[in-house]
Amino acid sequence: MDKEQLFTEISSKAQAAKATAMEMANLSTQVKNRALLAMADALITKAPIILEANETDMENGRHRGLSTPLLDRLLLTTDRLEGMANGLRQIAALPDPVGKGVSSVRRPNGLDIRCVRVPLGLVGIIYEARPNVTADAIGLCIKSGNAVILRGGSEAINSNQLISLVLAEAAYAAGIPHGAIQFVEETDRQGVDVLLHLHGVLDVVIPRGGAGLIQHVVNNSTVPVIETGVGVCHIYVDDPCDTAMATKVILNAKTSRPAVCNAIETVLVHKNLKDSYLPELVKTLQQEKVEVRGCEETAKLPGVVPATSEDWSTEYGNLILSVKVVEDMEAAIQHIGEFGTHHSEAIITKDYDHALRFQRCVDAAAVYVNASTRFTDGEEFGFGAEIGISTQKLHARGPMGLEALTTNKYLIYGEGQIR
Amino acid sequence: MDKEQLFTEISSKAQAAKATAMEMANLSTQVKNRALLAMADALITKAPIILEANETDMENGRHRGLSTPLLDRLLLTTDRLEGMANGLRQIAALPDPVGKGVSSVRRPNGLDIRCVRVPLGLVGIIYEARPNVTADAIGLCIKSGNAVILRGGSEAINSNQLISLVLAEAAYAAGIPHGAIQFVEETDRQGVDVLLHLHGVLDVVIPRGGAGLIQHVVNNSTVPVIETGVGVCHIYVDDPCDTAMATKVILNAKTSRPAVCNAIETVLVHKNLKDSYLPELVKTLQQEKVEVRGCEETAKLPGVVPATSEDWSTEYGNLILSVKVVEDMEAAIQHIGEFGTHHSEAIITKDYDHALRFQRCVDAAAVYVNASTRFTDGEEFGFGAEIGISTQKLHARGPMGLEALTTNKYLIYGEGQIR
Repeated sequence: MDKEQLFTEISSKAQAAKATAMEMANLSTQVKNRALLAMADALITKAPIILEANETDMENGRHRGLSTPLLDRLLLTTDRLEGMANGLRQIAALPDPVGKGVSSVRRPNGLDIRCVRVPLGLVGIIYEARPNVTADAIGLCIKSGNAVILRGGSEAINSNQLISLVLAEAAYAAGIPHGAIQFVEETDRQGVDVLLHLHGVLDVVIPRGGAGLIQHVVNNSTVPVIETGVGVCHIYVDDPCDTAMATKVILNAKTSRPAVCNAIETVLVHKNLKDSYLPELVKTLQQEKVEVRGCEETAKLPGVVPATSEDWSTEYGNLILSVKVVEDMEAAIQHIGEFGTHHSEAIITKDYDHALRFQRCVDAAAVYVNASTRFTDGEEFGFGAEIGISTQKLHARGPMGLEALTTNKYLIYGEGQIR
Repeated sequence: MDKEQLFTEISSKAQAAKATAMEMANLSTQVKNRALLAMADALITKAPIILEANETDMENGRHRGLSTPLLDRLLLTTDRLEGMANGLRQIAALPDPVGKGVSSVRRPNGLDIRCVRVPLGLVGIIYEARPNVTADAIGLCIKSGNAVILRGGSEAINSNQLISLVLAEAAYAAGIPHGAIQFVEETDRQGVDVLLHLHGVLDVVIPRGGAGLIQHVVNNSTVPVIETGVGVCHIYVDDPCDTAMATKVILNAKTSRPAVCNAIETVLVHKNLKDSYLPELVKTLQQEKVEVRGCEETAKLPGVVPATSEDWSTEYGNLILSVKVVEDMEAAIQHIGEFGTHHSEAIITKDYDHALRFQRCVDAAAVYVNASTRFTDGEEFGFGAEIGISTQKLHARGPMGLEALTTNKYLIYGEGQIR
């Protein structure tokens, strides 16, 4: 398809979705919930054809030589479809964020000013290989009263396209305005770039995926962007601390799911612990198949690979951990300030002043004392579901639930007031 | 200055400001208020040299042939400096937004999760000719615990530079960390463009000025942007309504300060009122020196200029008003959807259902029933002061007070929890 055709096709889809925004914003909670439940049912009844489309993607993936973890992320099974359907049912059970009052005031001149939550309008989701994102994103956008346009990666194109089609059909049959759910079939960057320039049509773009995708979106979008998910997270082991707790938390934060953004990449250890604790920590990590890359001090220990300067800013996404001995907590805070991605950071300490100062001085969405960074997650925070984890500061920071897909509107009630 | 030099100079200023962010975030309210009061005093004691610098700008402006309204916006007087000083004193009197609790929850696993407001970090303000913006912006950023980098327009360069210098000196003497207030002397677009690409250093850029400046910032920034202030605002005169109220509100919204963004540019009139009310409205407007540009129907009236298609999307900024007869409220809502800028919109009506539907269906930051759009303003809304009026939906919408200069941070208190 040539560039102009592509622009016409994608922008007409976006315009069609945007045209439903007013109706979407005024849908009753009942209609939205009914649609979500119908969408969940459709995923199950249409499972055979969805799994068939997924098999095509899997086959293409094997031909293209995708890695085993990537193939695993791509794979759909009856169980996984069941999980996606349950996700939609959970979204139906959450409170409707639209119309929620934020503030209400009567001004001295008699004007009543109410601030309420309203949908953003048209949300663009740009994502990579995971087909479950398709159902989550559509479900969260519907519940928050937004129209949505999705553009998924090439690896999962057949699965994603069919899932959006199945969900859209079920949604429209249940009363969602026709056109509110759009899917862009073009999978190369050109398709992304068209979306990124629809300023005034799209109200926000949320990129979900690797650092490369997110960087591209940030650098090229005229539409407001919410950056998500790159996580170079740290745990700082302070002196004094419960070292057994430190080991337990570090193992959890590194090994329970190394590919996710709230897993840690670096452990910082107070110099007082370099003989009494560090060797034991490194040994335990190695027993759990974690490759340890260390600073000069740590690299003296058996089996530790010397870290290069690149290591400190790398999101490994697998069983590799960089370890550095630091002078004190201030040095740890400084290291995190230099290499962190403002996602999730933790201190393991027994010192009250240190806990307070670490939480105040570390610039991240979530700052933990004595707990694993793995809790930075919409469900763990009690939001019920999430559209992503924001690592920027505007609009939403940290896990983004339904509320992050809404904005404010001021409603002013007067009796002829002038200024 | 060549491009590389310019980049080095501006980015080192931004880096210097950013380096103070941690200290700024942890300043006590007392220190910040003391600094704001000292800054207010400094504006008064340094009035003679500030007025001298302003006289240079005025002279240059006259040589360059600036229009009378522009020269008036540029002009400083003892009274206006007094006004700026009072603005800073008012900011000192406002509650500190930093540390304010947003939510607090104990999760089933015993984790205590607190969400609190924290400063954004480093705020970039890009503005045009009004020197009072310098004091407002610095004051609001200090109070909200942010470092700030300002880049003003060429017309007011001498005034702005001196005001920032005077305020920074007073602030530093009162305990604000040295470097937290930075001023970019380069006044052409190149200076702006350097700022717009400091992703990761600047946390947000707020452009304040005309449509051209804002468009340039939106199109070129990799730093998150809050769009402000372009206002093509409408008043829709419904049937039934109190037409005397309509006239009073329309006159206020058009003539009380035609250059500001919350003034109206277009009036939409229900077709039932075209004979009974429209002629009288047009006559009253013309008596108040408003040039009326009308749709085909309105243009039949004496003295009315036929509107071109451009008129409906023009922010006149002076005593010109476009007037259109519409079929009904739905047609008015559609017109506003097509030509509005999501700023402030109003309906004058006596009908309950119309009031409700207009407020729900019009997509704008502020939607009025029976009141002038001129109230969309931080002080009028009770925020005490404002950094601008957001016409986008992310982060902040409508008048932005101190709270809009903060973000969330999750503080998590654990006892060794793992996931």
